[in-house]
Amino acid sequence: MKYIVEISYVASSKFCGWQIQKNKPTYQQVCEDVFSKVLGAKTSIVASGRTDSGVSAIRQVGHFETNVDIPNNFVGHVNSLLPEEIKVLSVNNIDEKFHARFDAKRKTYKYYFYQSKTKIPFYDKFALHVTNKMDFDLMVSQAQLLIGLHDFKSFCATGSEVKDFVRTIYSVDLKKSGDLYEFTICGNGFLYNMVRIIVGTLIDIGSGKIQRSLDEIIESRNRTCAGKTVGPEGLVLVDVCY
Amino acid sequence: MKYIVEISYVASSKFCGWQIQKNKPTYQQVCEDVFSKVLGAKTSIVASGRTDSGVSAIRQVGHFETNVDIPNNFVGHVNSLLPEEIKVLSVNNIDEKFHARFDAKRKTYKYYFYQSKTKIPFYDKFALHVTNKMDFDLMVSQAQLLIGLHDFKSFCATGSEVKDFVRTIYSVDLKKSGDLYEFTICGNGFLYNMVRIIVGTLIDIGSGKIQRSLDEIIESRNRTCAGKTVGPEGLVLVDVCY
Repeated sequence: MKYIVEISYVASSKFCGWQIQKNKPTYQQVCEDVFSKVLGAKTSIVASGRTDSGVSAIRQVGHFETNVDIPNNFVGHVNSLLPEEIKVLSVNNIDEKFHARFDAKRKTYKYYFYQSKTKIPFYDKFALHVTNKMDFDLMVSQAQLLIGLHDFKSFCATGSEVKDFVRTIYSVDLKKSGDLYEFTICGNGFLYNMVRIIVGTLIDIGSGKIQRSLDEIIESRNRTCAGKTVGPEGLVLVDVCY
Repeated sequence: MKYIVEISYVASSKFCGWQIQKNKPTYQQVCEDVFSKVLGAKTSIVASGRTDSGVSAIRQVGHFETNVDIPNNFVGHVNSLLPEEIKVLSVNNIDEKFHARFDAKRKTYKYYFYQSKTKIPFYDKFALHVTNKMDFDLMVSQAQLLIGLHDFKSFCATGSEVKDFVRTIYSVDLKKSGDLYEFTICGNGFLYNMVRIIVGTLIDIGSGKIQRSLDEIIESRNRTCAGKTVGPEGLVLVDVCY
């Protein structure tokens, strides 16, 4: 039987991202260990995609297969064994053909950052610190240029093995509340470090460090035309749709 | 000479709120210790008001007096000695008559909470977890009834020594983004636990646990007519104006 599972986790120095790594604790590892223990049989979870160390997920989606009957209070039991940094939101039966990675139709990410000369410890919990002042209206209008089907090679970390850099961005949104900026982006898929490079580029455009417009940067298909890759601390996988 | 100081701190199990307490680390204590060390003279800080254990502040304001000349890089020096949970945003000369508590004209607080059957570890960093579903539109319209000059005795923790429960609320705002609620309230002053009781009451109204309307609760001048006092984890002092 195949199951779809919704998983929620928060970035923590205790975990090195989603994907299993040798000798390093990861969300996938702790999840599989607890699932295997409760079901009494080795269980592997396939997620919609990996998230790097330092990245949180409000709703990561995965699938797993098992011959064991899922007990009634499975979610409650699993959550009582999982550390507080990771919780399972739901487990439900799904069609045998379902694949959490290949069938993902759209993903939504948020990136939080704040502008202040000095660090604001409350925002440091979940947002990147930016010292330079930024032109908010310019950033909002430039961000809109991301929407649509584009070759996003400029926004892919070098060294990635991907050959096809074409992705579709369905929506972007940049909000500001006081000194806190909330960037939301939804697309059919994201290249490696793509959201973090997009945010770094918008920050560099907003602060005047980059004078090119965002469509020129897209057209260049050249990573060095885009901005820096900002840290993982502001990034959250919000949702995955099928 | 008198100085106005802007201080920013994040709730942490390491600190028991703002105000100095015997044998307990507090933000005031650590701040005064570092100020005294850098200035080479015992320095006391008077804040706009205390914040309880578990409450963060984006911009707390205080004043202090000293005969010592403030060195040029005072803020940088102080911040290098302060723990990461607390930072000084600015220090500036101010009129001798200024008083951080008595002269505060308005304060703004935010309270973050989220609705989900299961805990969302990312939101747990800064928001209260509410399991019951809530009627958002009802909460928005009820929250508006707080605006204006009212006797807020129903929203004051019992045991408070305050005699005058009249306060003016200038604005309230309730926003929702996904499952996350952000409540903002600005007033000329707040009674003990007032924001936390207001939020608890709005949550109880939204979930149907309280059937009375908010103006009835205000008129009753009876703490037991209002909702529960929600925890400190969602509360942030955003700003103090003079």
